[in-house]
Amino acid sequence: MSLSNRRIVLVQPRDPNNIGAVARAMKNFGFTDLAIVTPHPPVWSEVVSAVNATDLLTSARVCGSLDDAIADCDLVIGTTDRTRVEEKRTVYTPFDLSRELAAADYNLALVFGSEKHGLTNEDLSRCHRVMSIPTERNCPSMNLGQAVAVCCYELIRDSAQAAIAHRPAETATAGATEAALQLSLEVLRQIDFVLPGNEPDLTRRLRGSLLRLNPTRYDIEMLCGILSRIKRGLQQTGE
Amino acid sequence: MSLSNRRIVLVQPRDPNNIGAVARAMKNFGFTDLAIVTPHPPVWSEVVSAVNATDLLTSARVCGSLDDAIADCDLVIGTTDRTRVEEKRTVYTPFDLSRELAAADYNLALVFGSEKHGLTNEDLSRCHRVMSIPTERNCPSMNLGQAVAVCCYELIRDSAQAAIAHRPAETATAGATEAALQLSLEVLRQIDFVLPGNEPDLTRRLRGSLLRLNPTRYDIEMLCGILSRIKRGLQQTGE
Repeated sequence: MSLSNRRIVLVQPRDPNNIGAVARAMKNFGFTDLAIVTPHPPVWSEVVSAVNATDLLTSARVCGSLDDAIADCDLVIGTTDRTRVEEKRTVYTPFDLSRELAAADYNLALVFGSEKHGLTNEDLSRCHRVMSIPTERNCPSMNLGQAVAVCCYELIRDSAQAAIAHRPAETATAGATEAALQLSLEVLRQIDFVLPGNEPDLTRRLRGSLLRLNPTRYDIEMLCGILSRIKRGLQQTGE
Repeated sequence: MSLSNRRIVLVQPRDPNNIGAVARAMKNFGFTDLAIVTPHPPVWSEVVSAVNATDLLTSARVCGSLDDAIADCDLVIGTTDRTRVEEKRTVYTPFDLSRELAAADYNLALVFGSEKHGLTNEDLSRCHRVMSIPTERNCPSMNLGQAVAVCCYELIRDSAQAAIAHRPAETATAGATEAALQLSLEVLRQIDFVLPGNEPDLTRRLRGSLLRLNPTRYDIEMLCGILSRIKRGLQQTGE
């Protein structure tokens, strides 16, 4: 999935550090299209909170109105905390949005209001959908940079999940694990831990423990190294 | 799901504002258990970035070591950016973690390192799993508060998704929509838009458009109000 048609729009953000934090979160998740509607005066294009994302700040588009910022988008999502929304509109969640975008590729604008008041009803009336992150009733309002981070994460979540294959190369093979088990038994015999009657049962239980631990190749190598050294040490003592 | 057994552990955080931002994100998502391992000197228990979560900061436990902070936990997850992990360990994602916690309820500790260096290999060796948020290769490192926000969101995501039922009360009934359609047709007849041959086809197309828009009760009420006024206006003109 390309993220070039996923725009983040900030309407009248107040704190330059929040703008920087938004840019950083966007870059963390591969988003590049940032539009800022009538930001408050302080210079924000070089704030330190952007860390490695200052390029995103300098390329951000400054717009005179929300209409300008969303003119070429065909799905505009306004964010708000649940307490602020008019009764008349359905409030969607970020997962609803993921589902909708998985079904059809839109030129999306995800719109965030100012830190203090959020989006106005006037702003929200320009949005196809109203979305709210499912926060607690007693602390609904999120920090702007954190809200953008959560939304960007949600937007890449499913494709990242599909793309990540865990490297199974680390896992020890059954053969290596069994060899370690046999070496363990040799040592256990040396210290008379294996009694005539209990060997089959003990072997089964040890094998079970070892496999349940899902050992990696490195675990088994280290275990065999330690066991060999103990075995040799015990042999020398026995001589 | 209770979140009382979901602990966030910060190891040697440097910036008090990040600690405040972590507290805020935790409170947004209903987390209450914060432990801080040997924080750097500045006072952080009253930073403004905590907004409504200062109670969480004042109740945070300050620990002398990571061992202290995780002693009573039975699943310890260390976070790191993917580039820093030893080859020898499997790196899990937040979704893997959700899946594991859905299958069995652990006393979880989710551990974050300092802003500058993250968790050391020494720290990571105390963790059952190593987890990394799937960020971009060219900008892997996240802001601490944003990383915690994303992880807390992921941890409540599935249960929030299950709990949220959209209010279908807003949707217009089929009957109300059909009444609006009939009123539209009356107006269209008044302005001679309905020709002898096209009425069935026009009716079908109009009904299709109206239903596809998924109108709410309020949309239909407004539409009927407008149509009634137009109808009356046309009748008066015609008199």
